[in-house]
Amino acid sequence: MAKPTVSLPQGTRDFGPDTVRKRQYIFSTIRSVFELYGFQPLETPAMENLETLMGKYGEEGDKLIFKILNNGVDNKNKEQLFRDGFEKILQGKNTKDITERALRYDLTIPFARYVAMNQGQLSFPFKRYQIQPVWRADKPQRGRYREFYQCDADVVGSTSLLNEVELTILYAETFKRLGVPVEIKLNNRKILAALAEVCGGVEKMIDITVAIDKLDKIGIEKVEGELEQRGLDADQIATIRKYLQVTGSNEERIGQIKALLGSTTSGAAGISELEFILGYFDQLDRPPVAVDFTLARGLNYYTGTIFEVKALGANMGSIGGGGRYDDLTGLFGVPGIPGVGISFGVDRIYDVMDELNLFPPDVQVGSQALFFNLGDAEGRKAFSLLQHLRNAGVRAELFHENTKFDKQFKYAEKKNIPFVIIIGSKELAENNCVIKDLRTGEQKSVSLDELVNFSFL
Amino acid sequence: MAKPTVSLPQGTRDFGPDTVRKRQYIFSTIRSVFELYGFQPLETPAMENLETLMGKYGEEGDKLIFKILNNGVDNKNKEQLFRDGFEKILQGKNTKDITERALRYDLTIPFARYVAMNQGQLSFPFKRYQIQPVWRADKPQRGRYREFYQCDADVVGSTSLLNEVELTILYAETFKRLGVPVEIKLNNRKILAALAEVCGGVEKMIDITVAIDKLDKIGIEKVEGELEQRGLDADQIATIRKYLQVTGSNEERIGQIKALLGSTTSGAAGISELEFILGYFDQLDRPPVAVDFTLARGLNYYTGTIFEVKALGANMGSIGGGGRYDDLTGLFGVPGIPGVGISFGVDRIYDVMDELNLFPPDVQVGSQALFFNLGDAEGRKAFSLLQHLRNAGVRAELFHENTKFDKQFKYAEKKNIPFVIIIGSKELAENNCVIKDLRTGEQKSVSLDELVNFSFL
Repeated sequence: MAKPTVSLPQGTRDFGPDTVRKRQYIFSTIRSVFELYGFQPLETPAMENLETLMGKYGEEGDKLIFKILNNGVDNKNKEQLFRDGFEKILQGKNTKDITERALRYDLTIPFARYVAMNQGQLSFPFKRYQIQPVWRADKPQRGRYREFYQCDADVVGSTSLLNEVELTILYAETFKRLGVPVEIKLNNRKILAALAEVCGGVEKMIDITVAIDKLDKIGIEKVEGELEQRGLDADQIATIRKYLQVTGSNEERIGQIKALLGSTTSGAAGISELEFILGYFDQLDRPPVAVDFTLARGLNYYTGTIFEVKALGANMGSIGGGGRYDDLTGLFGVPGIPGVGISFGVDRIYDVMDELNLFPPDVQVGSQALFFNLGDAEGRKAFSLLQHLRNAGVRAELFHENTKFDKQFKYAEKKNIPFVIIIGSKELAENNCVIKDLRTGEQKSVSLDELVNFSFL
Repeated sequence: MAKPTVSLPQGTRDFGPDTVRKRQYIFSTIRSVFELYGFQPLETPAMENLETLMGKYGEEGDKLIFKILNNGVDNKNKEQLFRDGFEKILQGKNTKDITERALRYDLTIPFARYVAMNQGQLSFPFKRYQIQPVWRADKPQRGRYREFYQCDADVVGSTSLLNEVELTILYAETFKRLGVPVEIKLNNRKILAALAEVCGGVEKMIDITVAIDKLDKIGIEKVEGELEQRGLDADQIATIRKYLQVTGSNEERIGQIKALLGSTTSGAAGISELEFILGYFDQLDRPPVAVDFTLARGLNYYTGTIFEVKALGANMGSIGGGGRYDDLTGLFGVPGIPGVGISFGVDRIYDVMDELNLFPPDVQVGSQALFFNLGDAEGRKAFSLLQHLRNAGVRAELFHENTKFDKQFKYAEKKNIPFVIIIGSKELAENNCVIKDLRTGEQKSVSLDELVNFSFL
């Protein structure tokens, strides 16, 4: 076999037919729930102006943005242009002469840019979903790629907690449809702020959430050690210990937190928001929601409710997350647009479903039937029947040439086609065909006039 | 209103909800026909190694490839790296120190790369479709963008003309489903080669096809003038005139070409291939196929059948095209894989469908029903009914807050939601609701127990 002289860039992947089909199953399940809940699709370009992206993801993030070389800049006729731009870069100035565009790093900033640019045309609350790839120049490793899909739903222009209720049950409904058992964790940033307030002031918020975020990994004792190092005193650490030891049912947990933080304005507000949201679930088949006060969601822009989804029975980090924010578009000159959003981690959901064997078997079936090609007259007859089946909605094909049985069987098997339809000279004369189910080995003779009524499932 | 301080890169577009829905309608129609015909989905990464792409699209094409700046290269700590790379570029050497990746320019080269890399795992014939964006640094103008989707289906590893038959009826079926009236033009490169052969030799092929390609725009007299300039003599030009004047039904045209070129090996082969393909259509509802010997399909790698699709009744260039080629993967070290493929011009199909008003009206409908929010108890009742409707498959939402009727009506209208469901205190007491169809203004009172049986279409 000839050896290819070509390869793929590090950290990128081809998706062959089987994988695309399984991924499409996830995407289309999520999309149909988004639509069921009144979210509308948005697509933004892969490229944004560099200045739209830079400075939005922290210093580390900036380094991971893929920048696009200005066109023609590597052309030796433009030497001076390139030389000038290059000198500017070396002086730490902007790099516009070399690169002025970059690849999308997430879907939130492009969404904010879109809302800022189209505020006059949009009707608020604007409920959008977006399912597109993003690119990051991260060091590739297992489960981390330089191109991957994000899948987000956000409601902007509304402070109503009904949105949080809706997003929670949207999560529950989607994972129910995918067959993935999950727990949806809820917390509220205002409660974390209240904890910081009673433990030395708001400026301790980052120290505290960073430490809390590590609880799962390092355990409570090391968290306490870290808090001590960060300058918290014994009383404060005792309060945090109590906070982290809150346990029981959702109602019991809320009761304990009320005793601990309910006297602060921020704590009372956070608790009341959580209670409002939980109250709505009483009317429903209860979604798998767990109040989890140790949930912090890193150092981001969330200001109210925060969400995280954990798959049960799989060894995997969170497969979804999100939260409420106060200001989506202020960075782009349009203040006063609050919102709340959630995200699905599609690559991880794929891995969980593969591990737990949750993909329905027919997701892998493309063509349902293959007509064998066994001669000129036989092939022509098969071709004409093929069109009848397709008109009836059966995905089917005719083998491209008259060749050995064996080769045609192999083609069907490799392509995971469940049924083969055999019309040889004998069958042609008798106006029938043999249909073989390759999954069971069962075969039967069917009249050609009845073929279109056969169930190819 | 606050002014946004942000913009989109030239030549790129956001697709808002209405546009995404219409585009999705086109994509999903094409996709379902691809699947009906046994094609399998493939997705390749947006980025390819630069060397995979360079030199594949001609000198002009190379200039239009978007290259990605190597990560960290614009970091002033890496001055020497960048300086070295830069000097190499100026010496016309390769640019790997500055850029080693680039954005996909079309879907054919990535497909060839995929087949070359995966030949051992694929079962041939391999029938793949691919629907993904590509990027070109063209000067933006009306209808020409720097990011646009391509939508291709190819069969590789087979020389059988059955594939041409299948691709022709696949075209016909797709445009029938989209409601776009079309003519599918067929020709064969071997016939054009035969014409070159009898008009001064194979080396005249490019001169002749370039001139013929302009026939529609400049007319036969100017084409003849151009042929004269290119050194063809009067006899040769007379032959080409006869060739271009071939007219009548498909059968009549083939008859005239047989008389003109049937005596050459290449001409006879091309004619026989065309006749084979046309012969298959006799058994079917005849697809709208027109043999058109003036079809040339530019200066590309096609070697046999060529296709082009023209929308009838719309002022638009071709909305699809393709052809047979001898060698897909030879460039990547894997020779001997012939194939045939077609492409759908999705942006143009969109424009034609918009111009001819061919999108079904319900393509634009996201949510089918909006529950008004008219108070706490009313809103909670509505919320619970909302879940029943969704469980029955109705796409629906509840307005996010209790506010004026007018505002809720406007939201439904702007979002193109056909039905609003009104539950005020009176309706709540009487256990019913008012459903208003915003398209007709018609409204009726429905018992809440019956709501789930109402048809929201």
